[in-house]
Amino acid sequence: MLMQTHEARLAALREELKRHQYDGFIVPISDEHMSEYVGDYAQRLGWLTGFGGSAGFAAVTLTHAAIFVDGRYTVQVREQVSAALFEYCSIPADSLAGWLAKVSENGARIAYDPWLHTAGWAAALERALAPAGIALVAAARNPIDAVWADQPAPSPAPALVHEDALAGQSSADKRAGVADWLERQGHDAVVIPALDSIAWLLNIRGNDVSHTPVALSYVIAHKDGHADLFIAPEKVTPELVQHLGNAVRVRDRSAFVAGLGELAGKRVAVDPDFGVAAIAQTLQAAGATVVAAQDPTILAKAMKNPVEQAGQRDAQVRDGAAVSKFLRWLAIEAPKGTVDELSAAARLAAFRREDAGLRDLSFDTISAAAGHAALPHYKVDEDSNIPIPPGSIYLVDSGGQYATATGSGTTDITRTVWIGPGAPSAEMKDRFTRVLKGHIQIDRAVFPQGTAGGQLDVLARQYLWEAGVDYAHGTGHGVGSFLGVHEGPQRIAKPSGGQAGTGQELFAGMILSNEPGYYKQGAFGIRIENLVLVEEREIAGAEGRWLGFETLTFVPIDRTLIEKSLLTADEIAWLDAYHAKVRTLLGPLLAGDDLAWLERETQPL
Amino acid sequence: MLMQTHEARLAALREELKRHQYDGFIVPISDEHMSEYVGDYAQRLGWLTGFGGSAGFAAVTLTHAAIFVDGRYTVQVREQVSAALFEYCSIPADSLAGWLAKVSENGARIAYDPWLHTAGWAAALERALAPAGIALVAAARNPIDAVWADQPAPSPAPALVHEDALAGQSSADKRAGVADWLERQGHDAVVIPALDSIAWLLNIRGNDVSHTPVALSYVIAHKDGHADLFIAPEKVTPELVQHLGNAVRVRDRSAFVAGLGELAGKRVAVDPDFGVAAIAQTLQAAGATVVAAQDPTILAKAMKNPVEQAGQRDAQVRDGAAVSKFLRWLAIEAPKGTVDELSAAARLAAFRREDAGLRDLSFDTISAAAGHAALPHYKVDEDSNIPIPPGSIYLVDSGGQYATATGSGTTDITRTVWIGPGAPSAEMKDRFTRVLKGHIQIDRAVFPQGTAGGQLDVLARQYLWEAGVDYAHGTGHGVGSFLGVHEGPQRIAKPSGGQAGTGQELFAGMILSNEPGYYKQGAFGIRIENLVLVEEREIAGAEGRWLGFETLTFVPIDRTLIEKSLLTADEIAWLDAYHAKVRTLLGPLLAGDDLAWLERETQPL
Repeated sequence: MLMQTHEARLAALREELKRHQYDGFIVPISDEHMSEYVGDYAQRLGWLTGFGGSAGFAAVTLTHAAIFVDGRYTVQVREQVSAALFEYCSIPADSLAGWLAKVSENGARIAYDPWLHTAGWAAALERALAPAGIALVAAARNPIDAVWADQPAPSPAPALVHEDALAGQSSADKRAGVADWLERQGHDAVVIPALDSIAWLLNIRGNDVSHTPVALSYVIAHKDGHADLFIAPEKVTPELVQHLGNAVRVRDRSAFVAGLGELAGKRVAVDPDFGVAAIAQTLQAAGATVVAAQDPTILAKAMKNPVEQAGQRDAQVRDGAAVSKFLRWLAIEAPKGTVDELSAAARLAAFRREDAGLRDLSFDTISAAAGHAALPHYKVDEDSNIPIPPGSIYLVDSGGQYATATGSGTTDITRTVWIGPGAPSAEMKDRFTRVLKGHIQIDRAVFPQGTAGGQLDVLARQYLWEAGVDYAHGTGHGVGSFLGVHEGPQRIAKPSGGQAGTGQELFAGMILSNEPGYYKQGAFGIRIENLVLVEEREIAGAEGRWLGFETLTFVPIDRTLIEKSLLTADEIAWLDAYHAKVRTLLGPLLAGDDLAWLERETQPL
Repeated sequence: MLMQTHEARLAALREELKRHQYDGFIVPISDEHMSEYVGDYAQRLGWLTGFGGSAGFAAVTLTHAAIFVDGRYTVQVREQVSAALFEYCSIPADSLAGWLAKVSENGARIAYDPWLHTAGWAAALERALAPAGIALVAAARNPIDAVWADQPAPSPAPALVHEDALAGQSSADKRAGVADWLERQGHDAVVIPALDSIAWLLNIRGNDVSHTPVALSYVIAHKDGHADLFIAPEKVTPELVQHLGNAVRVRDRSAFVAGLGELAGKRVAVDPDFGVAAIAQTLQAAGATVVAAQDPTILAKAMKNPVEQAGQRDAQVRDGAAVSKFLRWLAIEAPKGTVDELSAAARLAAFRREDAGLRDLSFDTISAAAGHAALPHYKVDEDSNIPIPPGSIYLVDSGGQYATATGSGTTDITRTVWIGPGAPSAEMKDRFTRVLKGHIQIDRAVFPQGTAGGQLDVLARQYLWEAGVDYAHGTGHGVGSFLGVHEGPQRIAKPSGGQAGTGQELFAGMILSNEPGYYKQGAFGIRIENLVLVEEREIAGAEGRWLGFETLTFVPIDRTLIEKSLLTADEIAWLDAYHAKVRTLLGPLLAGDDLAWLERETQPL
């Protein structure tokens, strides 16, 4: 197959822009559902520029082009994207509107695809461009799709039934909840474009997006309890139709715009974070009243029911056994100097696949040796791959999507281990132990009903702060139930820096990661991550209602990296009890040398 | 003198409303400066209803009347205000707009005094009343003032010069900073109605409001560095005129409305939290453009300069000696059963007045015995006064305003002590020690530049939360420098419940209280409060800039109430080091039995 160069692609895009009298176009990594991970068909930024990162966007005018990435991708963008074609811009220092104003004439018409941006994004950009006399116009068709000859088709994988026995609540019940909400709010219908919300609401899953088991579709839910599911016909099986029942009308995905048009005269709720501009524009053009409201499934989805909680515990034990086998293997092989970041990730994936319940990894494994571990979002590929040096710290952040007949769940775990021979430095042990102390404080936290995740964040950071260091990421994110490994609205993080959700009250049933870290630029990185479940707590003499965390993830924490003198007696007791539970839970799934390793690694400190 | 009854006052107010074709009127506790404490002339709610609390408001129509108070005053309002005249309403459960809509006819005209409410308050109420067909109208003159025959005049006390040697920065410098800000923001002028902002900006003080040494006045500061000070002529001394210099025009307070009118065509900044509706209305009527912006003196005022910091330390030692003498006296007298809440507060005030530097108390002393201490904002008076029972916990929250030739400062301290004979219960000791542990964690906190007060709040609560209890107030508020004992914008508190300011980044030089507590309804109350100063911290190996707290308040903490087994070695070391410093600092100011008491009370635990 003839490989088109990025230069030729950029030229073809500009020809297409000219054909439509556009002076420029914005190219995001985004899909019609504002998904965190997007299908291959939507990887337009990568096709145009060669950029392989997961966040960023390009702006192309007839004479100029720029790619905007954040601090995580400063190095990578220079390696992957031609400086001759694209100017490198930094988010948030450089602004899109500022760059467009600089390179465009007064009267310019810059196009965007209204199916790939929210209405709020478009309104803000429109306002910012107005003083420069630049108009922002919605493109009728994405100009990249017009010139991308071998653009992959959206996945045709069938949508799958997620049995009530795994979901713990029927779709009819969930839809009744949404109908009640519509009634209470005085809305007629809600448009739900978020794929994980649709999966949760209808108890369906899919294989259309890597790592997240969702099916490409849209839902319009009505206040009478009926719903319209817009989905490609090839994805619809007889089992699916039967599962959905009479109250869900299955319609072709291409009929979605028509379906929006049917809401003329109605009051329609759309979540401004997930509804793209085209949805609001189509509704308004049809004469519907668009009301901005949080997707009513988000909070309900975040509060896992007892069946989902049990499925999560089951998935965690399966996953813990696989990670433990890997860590034993790594402890033997890596000190020989024969393991690299890619082969380690591959071996870990193989151990996970030994479990018949594994459906997918829940995200691309972060397998990071030496200085790479200091990049919290490092993603290994053929170009970046390095051997794991003997006598170093190695960090692995990974997870799986599990579903069996008896339970389903999503895992996310980070372990940081010392690779022999030799011993870690005093600095490494000091930092690892401070991270561990913070991890323990979050795990042991007790807090009143009404507390938001952001209020707890400092508990994880306090021992690092004592030493004058910190980590530049959140402490915890929500996790789905055999759904997205990142899920809102709850979060444990600092309130600044775009950490939406830190103000969300925590409710029993929510799952969060607990993942403090420390990163020494160019040297090493440390992160210790378990998942935790918010649970009610009975406390003698308590006033009011109290919550705490049940630990969900059970895999040994590397004692080689612990400076015991920094731990209090309570912290040592926590670690010993944790390891005892690791042994109890994982022992039955391991045998022989793996079991012997587990028993060694879980001895009291 | 003939005492008018509240019934007669209410009737007179209604007659006055009828004269102006008003159907109702709102009566707040408020002044033209949105002050926390208001002068006697502005105590209109108390005059009308008999209510003696410091927060609340009444609404009066021709046929109905209600008084609105929050949970702190539920009991007090029933004791002080006649149920025959006023319906009792609870904030925030009952809404003013809802009540007005219930008792008013469509077409009703409800008046408010635009000098006593912010424009935001008026706009929100106007919107809320519109659906009921009720109009909110600004009264040309306050109808209570028209019928309050013996309304006190505003204080005629002279305004005082606050020497540069105490302020640490000249008013000219400060005004240059405001002028720079106006220039950068593109404003022509800023209206400053907040009395403590004026005091800080012009380096003046006064005696017009109890507890806060401010002078009733307004300022308009211009971008050329000039300022207009509107102040009653009787308050202006030759020294004041000389101090203010040529760049400050001293004008009659009654010329303020005319002064606003001179800003026609200008862009004028007004802080929406401190500028009353009348200011915005007058400016708009004159053709000025009103821009909502935070008062530019607030952040600068909050960051104390080295001279102010030194003055604060000096005030703290003077105050600590007085409180120590009081605590020794109390330890001898109270176990005899002869001390009551009022006499204790009077004795404490007398000890403070022994210091020639005391200018005023910084707020009404909270002197609370037994169950009264469980009311965090309890204010003792002749009616509520009870004897301090031997064998009980006593809480005293108090402070002073100090100014000498060499330094000035504002103090605020709470101590909770055991009154013998006998010993505190295990529960009391457990709670006191958990409060102390939280207090120590705040005091010892180290945090990166960029941290907001709200992020630290959980450090103070965590040990109480472990036991399933909490306290329903903030952990810390800002404190002025020989100014308001409550000062923004910094704060350590939960983010919910109207805790504005918890998101304010902490900067070196800010002073905060550190006052966790615990309150057992009807039984006892505990609070331990010191002031702390945000300071830069040098940490070996640190990345970035780090802050911590310097402790400012030094008075013994009652060891009788400490359960030592709950303290870590680090916490015991903190307490012993704290007490050693108490001894070093206060020892030189005490003698004889007082000194012996100090030495006993500050022994290592």
